[in-house]
Amino acid sequence: MSNDNKKMVKEITSMDADFAQWYTDIVKKADLAAYSNVKGFMIVRPYGYAIWELMQSNIDQMFKALGHENICMPMLIPESLLNKEKEHVEGFAPGVAWVTYGASEKLEERYCIRPTSETLFCDHFKDIVHSWRDLPLLYNQWVSVVRWEKTTRPFLRTREFLWQEGHTLHATQEEAEQETMQMLNVYAEFCKNCLAIPVVQGRKTDKEKFAGAEATYTIEAMMHDGKALQSGTSHYFGDGFSRAFDVTFTDKDNRLAYPHQTSWGSSTRLIGAVIMTHGDDNGLVLPPPVAPIQVMIVPVAQHKPGVLEKAEEVFRTLQSCCRVRMDKSENSPGWKFAEYEMKGVPIRLELGPRDIEKGVCILSRRDTGEKISVELNRLTEAIPALLKEIHENLYRRAKERRDAMTYTARDLNEMKEIAATKPGFIRAMWCGDEACEAQLKEQADVTSRCIPFDDQEQVAETCVCCGKPAKKLVYWGKAY
Amino acid sequence: MSNDNKKMVKEITSMDADFAQWYTDIVKKADLAAYSNVKGFMIVRPYGYAIWELMQSNIDQMFKALGHENICMPMLIPESLLNKEKEHVEGFAPGVAWVTYGASEKLEERYCIRPTSETLFCDHFKDIVHSWRDLPLLYNQWVSVVRWEKTTRPFLRTREFLWQEGHTLHATQEEAEQETMQMLNVYAEFCKNCLAIPVVQGRKTDKEKFAGAEATYTIEAMMHDGKALQSGTSHYFGDGFSRAFDVTFTDKDNRLAYPHQTSWGSSTRLIGAVIMTHGDDNGLVLPPPVAPIQVMIVPVAQHKPGVLEKAEEVFRTLQSCCRVRMDKSENSPGWKFAEYEMKGVPIRLELGPRDIEKGVCILSRRDTGEKISVELNRLTEAIPALLKEIHENLYRRAKERRDAMTYTARDLNEMKEIAATKPGFIRAMWCGDEACEAQLKEQADVTSRCIPFDDQEQVAETCVCCGKPAKKLVYWGKAY
Repeated sequence: MSNDNKKMVKEITSMDADFAQWYTDIVKKADLAAYSNVKGFMIVRPYGYAIWELMQSNIDQMFKALGHENICMPMLIPESLLNKEKEHVEGFAPGVAWVTYGASEKLEERYCIRPTSETLFCDHFKDIVHSWRDLPLLYNQWVSVVRWEKTTRPFLRTREFLWQEGHTLHATQEEAEQETMQMLNVYAEFCKNCLAIPVVQGRKTDKEKFAGAEATYTIEAMMHDGKALQSGTSHYFGDGFSRAFDVTFTDKDNRLAYPHQTSWGSSTRLIGAVIMTHGDDNGLVLPPPVAPIQVMIVPVAQHKPGVLEKAEEVFRTLQSCCRVRMDKSENSPGWKFAEYEMKGVPIRLELGPRDIEKGVCILSRRDTGEKISVELNRLTEAIPALLKEIHENLYRRAKERRDAMTYTARDLNEMKEIAATKPGFIRAMWCGDEACEAQLKEQADVTSRCIPFDDQEQVAETCVCCGKPAKKLVYWGKAY
Repeated sequence: MSNDNKKMVKEITSMDADFAQWYTDIVKKADLAAYSNVKGFMIVRPYGYAIWELMQSNIDQMFKALGHENICMPMLIPESLLNKEKEHVEGFAPGVAWVTYGASEKLEERYCIRPTSETLFCDHFKDIVHSWRDLPLLYNQWVSVVRWEKTTRPFLRTREFLWQEGHTLHATQEEAEQETMQMLNVYAEFCKNCLAIPVVQGRKTDKEKFAGAEATYTIEAMMHDGKALQSGTSHYFGDGFSRAFDVTFTDKDNRLAYPHQTSWGSSTRLIGAVIMTHGDDNGLVLPPPVAPIQVMIVPVAQHKPGVLEKAEEVFRTLQSCCRVRMDKSENSPGWKFAEYEMKGVPIRLELGPRDIEKGVCILSRRDTGEKISVELNRLTEAIPALLKEIHENLYRRAKERRDAMTYTARDLNEMKEIAATKPGFIRAMWCGDEACEAQLKEQADVTSRCIPFDDQEQVAETCVCCGKPAKKLVYWGKAY
């Protein structure tokens, strides 16, 4: 690459020098999002939105395959409705945006912009549920919500964010609990199969659970800097909301009963998870299932006879097997290489006169930088296979890093030592007392991420904080 | 159908008895939308939302094929931003919802919930447009907007509605004008090919144009009751917004210039258009491209040996060629027939023991009620062909009705007479004076729908209102 080219190339802060700045640089220079002049609100730009559309279509298919239907609720909630469930209002009311005027007139009752929609769904359920025959109701909506955050960062925490919120209603506790777990599994599978992100599934402690839920389950991912990112949650409500909103049904024995409820959500935060799980100092690295461009064709020496024609032919051929684009602009190959690395395109396909003579092209992998020469007539098999391999490699690499950055602490000193020096998850026993969670936050600056399902090794006999007997293994960490 | 069955069947008001009630009945009984307890806001229910998803995916593909990209802007607009373009703020500010508090604190500047997003897009364009190389920008977003309407009706006019809003920026006036017309054509094609709705394309008079636009173009559809429904609009802004928001670019001659802008929108109102264009006294009639269920299989005498097995086999076969469902519930065939007629399913497939013996089934068309016996081994050809035929018939029928309900008035008396007695469009000359539009509203209760492109017959020498010389033919009517 010539010096001239280098100057044209977008440069970003290195991950090790300043992780937060590296993140912001990628968000801006890969054209994912822009800051708006509405404080705390972001603009999701075309490339970022295209990633979101792929995430949406993948997970929406999973929801629908399990019988869920999409609906759309109002974006405003009257204050009296928000107030109906005590814990819920205490959790959310302090952080909402209030609409007080409509068309120049002061409203008799103020409305908040939904921070989440349990209250609206319950109000609707009350009208449409009468008999056990009406259950289960398996609903979801794709909307944006507003929470008036003080500190914001694109995709990770913004005053408005795009998400899906599932809300379901069931005749029995057992069925609702199964749904809660099923949807947590959907999130975990989606993270693995579409985002190449390994997650720890587990239950939140009471301190960290959703306002109004009986139990909150979470998938926790580990970012490149060792911090945790809560990437999706699934809540079991019991019949608390049903009672608060007077949702009843006649069961099979003709008795009036309260249905059991769940909700579950995931958001554009997952774009942040992708950036911070797979990205590197050259920019974004996208898992193929959510890459708007999976293969970028860069013709080399494109003015030489036959190059563009061959490149166009390859382009047309590949349209049947991947999301392919070609850049035949006047920008130099060096600029193009850097640009599509920044944008995380999984495969760059280089094609020059000498390649054409030999009937081959060069495939350059974004994940490893490796270059492979492949025969042109083998591309429609080679590319899908390589996309799969890249995905698996991204997942394996992220999992290995996560495992290597997961530590075990047996007492408070060990916990403080690890928390201060080794970014990552810390496995440690907990007695179940919220006071210990508060202590650990104060002394080691960690929060409980979850009580994992798949890892309940008894690493010590006693609580890492208070020394009392403890049975639960908790993953602790610093979190976004 | 037995009396017992009849009682189970949902009944609706007849169209002739009370058109408004007929509409509301369909909205509720076909499970399209529900009233919420948030005044003026609707809940889009699963069946209605599934129709919307099909509309979205069809038109979104058309947008993308023309190079448009989806993005997502904030839902809130600071008052100072809304105020920047004079005509725009005068048109919209009086009807918005104002957020005045965020997280218990009074905001220094109040925000409105977007009624439309020109101001936000311009504010973003200012940041990202520098050179002619950055143009055109072809953006669209799928969001909901809020306008504080006094009188609301599901899908037709609600305080919040789902829509898409396209916003584009161009180097030249000519290119922006082409885009404006292109997108109007996209709407017209979509209405014809996906909704089977014929529309009149034309230009709005200045009185009826969008606040801040230089020109507004519209597609106007005629509902069953002869009223007009504005079903999509496309606006040419010139460089007015660019000047107001200081959006500039360096053109090819290295001079600073203001780009030219367009916007265009369509909404869930189109669901209302489908209901009122094709519906009948048995309920909704859906055009096949937007029917969530295109074929409903109803097994007859389903307890007889072999019936369900054969129905399942047909069901599996048809999955390759249409959106098919089967109802093998315990409800009577009569109930099922009425239910799927109410829901507008284009084809009902009946299959009973005698049909199976003969190797046939009965296809019942929702649009005509006609029943056809078709050989089972011909279904995968017969059904797509029949869906196409149904679509064409719906379009033809709607167009014939519209043409039959389009009248011509040569003077004010004729106009008043037609407006009072014959629901529909009225073709009449107009001098171009807004005062005449006001007069016609007062005296004949009609508004100008558009100055149509394809019908500029000089039906009289003089303005239908004032008698002065007139060159423009205008379509007038009562509108939703």
